[in-house]
Amino acid sequence: MKPVIIVNFKAYKEGTGKEAVELAKICEMVALETGKNIVIAVEEVDIHKISSLVKIPVYSEHLDPIYSGAHTGQNLPKALKDNGAEGTILNHSEDRFRIDQLEESIKIAKVIGLKTVVCANDSNIAEAVASFKPDMIAIEPPELIGGDISVSTAKPEIITDTISKVNKTAIIPVLCGAGIKNRSDVKKAIDLGAKGILVASGIVKASNPEESLKELVEGL
Amino acid sequence: MKPVIIVNFKAYKEGTGKEAVELAKICEMVALETGKNIVIAVEEVDIHKISSLVKIPVYSEHLDPIYSGAHTGQNLPKALKDNGAEGTILNHSEDRFRIDQLEESIKIAKVIGLKTVVCANDSNIAEAVASFKPDMIAIEPPELIGGDISVSTAKPEIITDTISKVNKTAIIPVLCGAGIKNRSDVKKAIDLGAKGILVASGIVKASNPEESLKELVEGL
Amino acid sequence: MKPVIIVNFKAYKEGTGKEAVELAKICEMVALETGKNIVIAVEEVDIHKISSLVKIPVYSEHLDPIYSGAHTGQNLPKALKDNGAEGTILNHSEDRFRIDQLEESIKIAKVIGLKTVVCANDSNIAEAVASFKPDMIAIEPPELIGGDISVSTAKPEIITDTISKVNKTAIIPVLCGAGIKNRSDVKKAIDLGAKGILVASGIVKASNPEESLKELVEGL
Amino acid sequence: MKPVIIVNFKAYKEGTGKEAVELAKICEMVALETGKNIVIAVEEVDIHKISSLVKIPVYSEHLDPIYSGAHTGQNLPKALKDNGAEGTILNHSEDRFRIDQLEESIKIAKVIGLKTVVCANDSNIAEAVASFKPDMIAIEPPELIGGDISVSTAKPEIITDTISKVNKTAIIPVLCGAGIKNRSDVKKAIDLGAKGILVASGIVKASNPEESLKELVEGL
Repeated sequence: MKPVIIVNFKAYKEGTGKEAVELAKICEMVALETGKNIVIAVEEVDIHKISSLVKIPVYSEHLDPIYSGAHTGQNLPKALKDNGAEGTILNHSEDRFRIDQLEESIKIAKVIGLKTVVCANDSNIAEAVASFKPDMIAIEPPELIGGDISVSTAKPEIITDTISKVNKTAIIPVLCGAGIKNRSDVKKAIDLGAKGILVASGIVKASNPEESLKELVEGL
Repeated sequence: MKPVIIVNFKAYKEGTGKEAVELAKICEMVALETGKNIVIAVEEVDIHKISSLVKIPVYSEHLDPIYSGAHTGQNLPKALKDNGAEGTILNHSEDRFRIDQLEESIKIAKVIGLKTVVCANDSNIAEAVASFKPDMIAIEPPELIGGDISVSTAKPEIITDTISKVNKTAIIPVLCGAGIKNRSDVKKAIDLGAKGILVASGIVKASNPEESLKELVEGL
Repeated sequence: MKPVIIVNFKAYKEGTGKEAVELAKICEMVALETGKNIVIAVEEVDIHKISSLVKIPVYSEHLDPIYSGAHTGQNLPKALKDNGAEGTILNHSEDRFRIDQLEESIKIAKVIGLKTVVCANDSNIAEAVASFKPDMIAIEPPELIGGDISVSTAKPEIITDTISKVNKTAIIPVLCGAGIKNRSDVKKAIDLGAKGILVASGIVKASNPEESLKELVEGL
Repeated sequence: MKPVIIVNFKAYKEGTGKEAVELAKICEMVALETGKNIVIAVEEVDIHKISSLVKIPVYSEHLDPIYSGAHTGQNLPKALKDNGAEGTILNHSEDRFRIDQLEESIKIAKVIGLKTVVCANDSNIAEAVASFKPDMIAIEPPELIGGDISVSTAKPEIITDTISKVNKTAIIPVLCGAGIKNRSDVKKAIDLGAKGILVASGIVKASNPEESLKELVEGL
């Protein structure tokens, strides 16, 4: 897999509603200019608009493990796909899943044709998640999320340990997240074996998202 | 308030993704032809597309009690609004809320400018919900949902009892749902004091949704 | 109702397992010496032991809205009663309930013969809860919980407002909690119309729980 | 590990409150008479009483991933231990866990000194759970739970597949459950490599629990 940067728009003011469009276009432009693989994950309600305006892959930040039916208020995977989503984040630290629903979500995503990036807070969770064969696993140590020190700098052994545990079960690309701020953080992660990074506030809340994203992309 | 029919598209095959557009247009057409008040509630991911194609009010089926911020996978009220939603269903039987989050959801919806229809399974829940001053309360006895006998026919006292309990706290329009199938069911509900109905499979899964909706509208 | 002090042992080290017995006996002794109404709420697993050792009422901190059946890991109200519990706290800020399950919990508690004290974070929630007719309602503003300023001193209007809203629906005793530290805090609460207080760390984590409890009791 | 039969009392009428004591004594008697390894899992509120009356191991049906602190209504592992519990069931089909809380629960149980039996609905979940190194894993296909056909008879490949997947990660004893009714069901499970069984209604709701348990024990 070509290394990837996934930008999680969360529910940030700068990453939702009208503001989300502008940010999505910046991400697309950087992807086009640099030829790198950039994916954006946005609120469900923004998927249709954004996926119709940009050509880079748009992911959902969540889905519910359901097929069509009487499920008021849940996020139907097939409807995400029909509206342009190509994948989804699952089990983010702000949206943890029940273990049985995580497995079922990955199964249904495969059937529907959505890629899955499953977040894990430590290497054991990553190893567990590998049993469900998602498309990517993102390791994010909670204590570093939103902080100033990157996981690749502060705890490189978490990345190598995760890759080694995941690979015992299956060859699944491992991304890393938490504290990623500059090209050096990204380069270290890639050098350690990561296949990309998951980033949020570092881009979405940056004073100059274009510049910040280009900085990260150079580390790929 | 002018009586209303709210059609809940749920996550039904016929009410999501591509199929949702056609159904939404049928609802709009019936509203235009009859001059009646018809609202549709759809999956978050369908809101943008549908609200840009029809002029009748589009509601969300859910929202999360949050303002902008780090809330991956949650449904931001402001983003719903920005994408064309005019209101939301809350506390549906398939999506019950914690009591504190229900109050907070209604508060935030007011701030953002989204109408709220809160579902209640019995008259005591409806009375409780009235304390939070939503725009509408929908009484749906769980034992009648999806069945063939309407609440207005089978249990008219539930409707009158709910209206009387709600009105002790505040003058809030009460809708009813569950088993509504024909104009007579609707007319009875209105005669009992209901200000409208909440319907799902009766329209969404009808062999001829246009005909079924016109049938209900005549009872308003 | 005679004014009451409910001491919530939570899962504090000083309020669980072996330590809970000693604390329970102190509460009983103060109740006997002063003739005041003191109730203790303890972990489910501690109920049998403690209720067999003290004569003051022992409450659970939680129950699940179930009758006997296949409910692995849930807290059966009847089993709580059989083991000596006389009541339960519901909807504590550390254990919020879904609105439908709160109503059902109160219903089942009544059937089984357990008293219910339902916590509310604001006066609207208290008013809503009153619709379910619990035996007591405890108002605890979250921003004051665990702090140094008592609700009766800092926000007396929350207490009077809650009592007035609750009483529109039913005559239900209102307790108050959060920041209660001394007899003056308690006295103010009683003077404002409260029928008692709900206290936790102020007693359980006090350097001298007996002294601290006697201090509060004098305010009743 | 010596093969084990774990009897889950659930919240059955016959397995809670006063009735639980009699059933626990029957289980103890069968264990003593046959020299076999029998464990009982009971409601939290029954643990103290039952563990003080019988000598066979008493497990909890649930615990919360917490240490001592402000956790009203949660089940503190240390308090379970202090009251006589020797272990706990986790992630039962009636009580599924979030993946991160499952890992944390197992970690805390190890620290406190409680054995863990983690339920899994399929072999992939069992494989995932193995990453957390619980003491036992119980495979229970949901479609067979409470039915008349045992997993060892109907789907022997689920047992062998689970054992093989679990053992790729760690040597952890695998139990099986669902539909186990007689010595032949148990014998087949053991022959397939299972180290014991998890049973509930088959014993707890049997017309003659002693006889039914002896029947199963003979298959060990």
